[in-house]
Amino acid sequence: MSLIVQKYGGTSVGDTGRILNVAKRIKTFVDGGNQVVVVVSARSGVTNELIARAKTFSPEPDEREMDMLLAVGEQETIALTAMALHSLGVKAVSRTGAQAGIITDDAHTRARIVEITGGDIRECLDRGEVVIVAGFQGIDRHGNVSTLGRGGSDLSAIALAAALKADVCQIYTDVSGVYTADPRVVKNARKIPEMSYEELLEMASLGSKVMQARSVEFAQKHNVVFEVRSSFNNEPGTIVKSEAPSLEDVVISGVAIDRNQTKVTVSDIPDKPGTAADIFRELGEAGIVVDMIVQNVGRGGKANLTFTVSKDDAAKAEKVLRAHCDGIKGATVSITGDIAKVSVIGTGMRSHSGVAAKFFQTLAENSINVQIITTSEIKISVGISLEDADLAANALHAAFALDK
Amino acid sequence: MSLIVQKYGGTSVGDTGRILNVAKRIKTFVDGGNQVVVVVSARSGVTNELIARAKTFSPEPDEREMDMLLAVGEQETIALTAMALHSLGVKAVSRTGAQAGIITDDAHTRARIVEITGGDIRECLDRGEVVIVAGFQGIDRHGNVSTLGRGGSDLSAIALAAALKADVCQIYTDVSGVYTADPRVVKNARKIPEMSYEELLEMASLGSKVMQARSVEFAQKHNVVFEVRSSFNNEPGTIVKSEAPSLEDVVISGVAIDRNQTKVTVSDIPDKPGTAADIFRELGEAGIVVDMIVQNVGRGGKANLTFTVSKDDAAKAEKVLRAHCDGIKGATVSITGDIAKVSVIGTGMRSHSGVAAKFFQTLAENSINVQIITTSEIKISVGISLEDADLAANALHAAFALDK
Repeated sequence: MSLIVQKYGGTSVGDTGRILNVAKRIKTFVDGGNQVVVVVSARSGVTNELIARAKTFSPEPDEREMDMLLAVGEQETIALTAMALHSLGVKAVSRTGAQAGIITDDAHTRARIVEITGGDIRECLDRGEVVIVAGFQGIDRHGNVSTLGRGGSDLSAIALAAALKADVCQIYTDVSGVYTADPRVVKNARKIPEMSYEELLEMASLGSKVMQARSVEFAQKHNVVFEVRSSFNNEPGTIVKSEAPSLEDVVISGVAIDRNQTKVTVSDIPDKPGTAADIFRELGEAGIVVDMIVQNVGRGGKANLTFTVSKDDAAKAEKVLRAHCDGIKGATVSITGDIAKVSVIGTGMRSHSGVAAKFFQTLAENSINVQIITTSEIKISVGISLEDADLAANALHAAFALDK
Repeated sequence: MSLIVQKYGGTSVGDTGRILNVAKRIKTFVDGGNQVVVVVSARSGVTNELIARAKTFSPEPDEREMDMLLAVGEQETIALTAMALHSLGVKAVSRTGAQAGIITDDAHTRARIVEITGGDIRECLDRGEVVIVAGFQGIDRHGNVSTLGRGGSDLSAIALAAALKADVCQIYTDVSGVYTADPRVVKNARKIPEMSYEELLEMASLGSKVMQARSVEFAQKHNVVFEVRSSFNNEPGTIVKSEAPSLEDVVISGVAIDRNQTKVTVSDIPDKPGTAADIFRELGEAGIVVDMIVQNVGRGGKANLTFTVSKDDAAKAEKVLRAHCDGIKGATVSITGDIAKVSVIGTGMRSHSGVAAKFFQTLAENSINVQIITTSEIKISVGISLEDADLAANALHAAFALDK
């Protein structure tokens, strides 16, 4: 008998028909003799409706009250999911985040999990009940409802799997796993059967929106093996775990495309220590995340600084930078346009040479102009024009034999 | 400085615009130097939507899960109401039923309040915060969410007023008070400025759907003076309290009409002890409430039993009675049609004679045929044809000078 933690996202429980399908899937695991804990999100759309209502009162509603408001989304789903299981003759009981003992700090709307007691989940399981837990939410030390922020339900599931020492953790979503590339772009992209936490982290941060980084980091820290799979079919998904020896044979795991980047250049700033730091500090204070960075030395003791920010932040970044450059004689700011970031990721890069060479060779053969480059231990990323993104992804996918 | 408990029903908080109006009203009391605790219902319609979703799984969903589901309605409203107050610069904080320490038994969907601790409401008030409490809901001794059933939010407000020893309890609703008769029927009906618990109880049980009887009974037991008033205007409403000496001058307080009754006759049953008891026991076991009862002795040791049930229960009652009469030779069941119950209510009836005489005289003068009669210490009710209901109400209203 295994203890399985399953998580179903908003689209998987989008209406009562889908909730019934989820219940049927849960039943197959119960019938297989397993103990099952299920974490569910709010029905898709509900959270946005609630936020819209809150924003009629204020653009930035009180965060404690926001959590009180948003928590109702999951509370609705747990009750309906339990009822759906009852209708199939399966014993089930629902638990809010508070009842499941998901204790968080009091950073409302983006709380961090401090501890998971599990409440009476083990007793419920011993009585043969499926336990349906509200994802995304918890309770702080003062008894206030808290929420975990984006990707919170995945985090709830992985943290519960760790606390309950579950044998299996399944993340059901609307994609059937992690692919070597976006199948809409690269026709012969393959599902990756197994990958490491680090690889998924790089994938996630690079625009393959499978899971938020914090959930993967939590799984890595607590060594929770999980599987990303589809709630709309029965195919095996992608298993994510610590780097296994066998994985090292695979040099590159996947190609990721992020089309949400804007390139910004600040020209003719003094080429001296602290200049760049000042700029990045001001952007950081404005809540703008800077991604790829290049600095070139120009002429006459001046430097040019180029970097990318998220498209959504471009206008705000420009405002901050213009204000900054007002105080620097000759300095100029230019938003040089939206670009695509294309990356290859693989833990095998650590032990294999020649990856960078093959990467740039491939781009050159396809006449793709590289505007900006960044690398980490397990990935290489380039900023290129949006029009070249699909060509680059396909060429790299083929060059690294990801379709094999 | 007074401590005021206010309760706003579903139509008063039906959308964010109305919630803002509620917040503005609360603010006037805060600006007046009062401490305010607010109990709110779910937005009108929300509870029915949730029930409809639950019923897709089962006609009778598990009651614990039903409570988990329904509690989200009020949780949404408390958060939005707190945000609305913030937008007006008023300090406010929301509390679920559980957080407000509304402890109930575990009779899910119809729980009874066992104790009210108030949670940290007093501390919040001392910090100058308005406390918004979710009506209708509580928590049982095992930490399960419970709901109080119909009229539960009124009960939450009155019970909180008792527990907090509030100076004033205001029940805001979509009517502006209790009237001497339904103003849609009797043109010169007047708002009753003050009335006793008993009178309101008789009114409520007779179809003037102002408040559920249990809330009034709770107020009576704990001597909570409350005011029923409108959330859409600033007129004083109706104050409900223990019988005051001055009230005795008013012989009759109001006329009530209940159009939701069906008359049932069981004929030719044995005229011996226990016959009627058997019938009412079986109806009771089927969850059917019997209202007005008349028994006539017939011929040959047989009796006829006539009574009224709610229209909604008529079909079920007929089924129960036919099964019962199958075992009694010669007994027949007839559903003799929908009738109206028209009543006059007043604690003054206790000390004034001649009320019954004037009552029946008035009906006779208007050629209204009385089919069934019941009385209590403070009311007289008759069952008459539906067509006569408006005429009877107007005639009685005038005869007892209720428009003066």
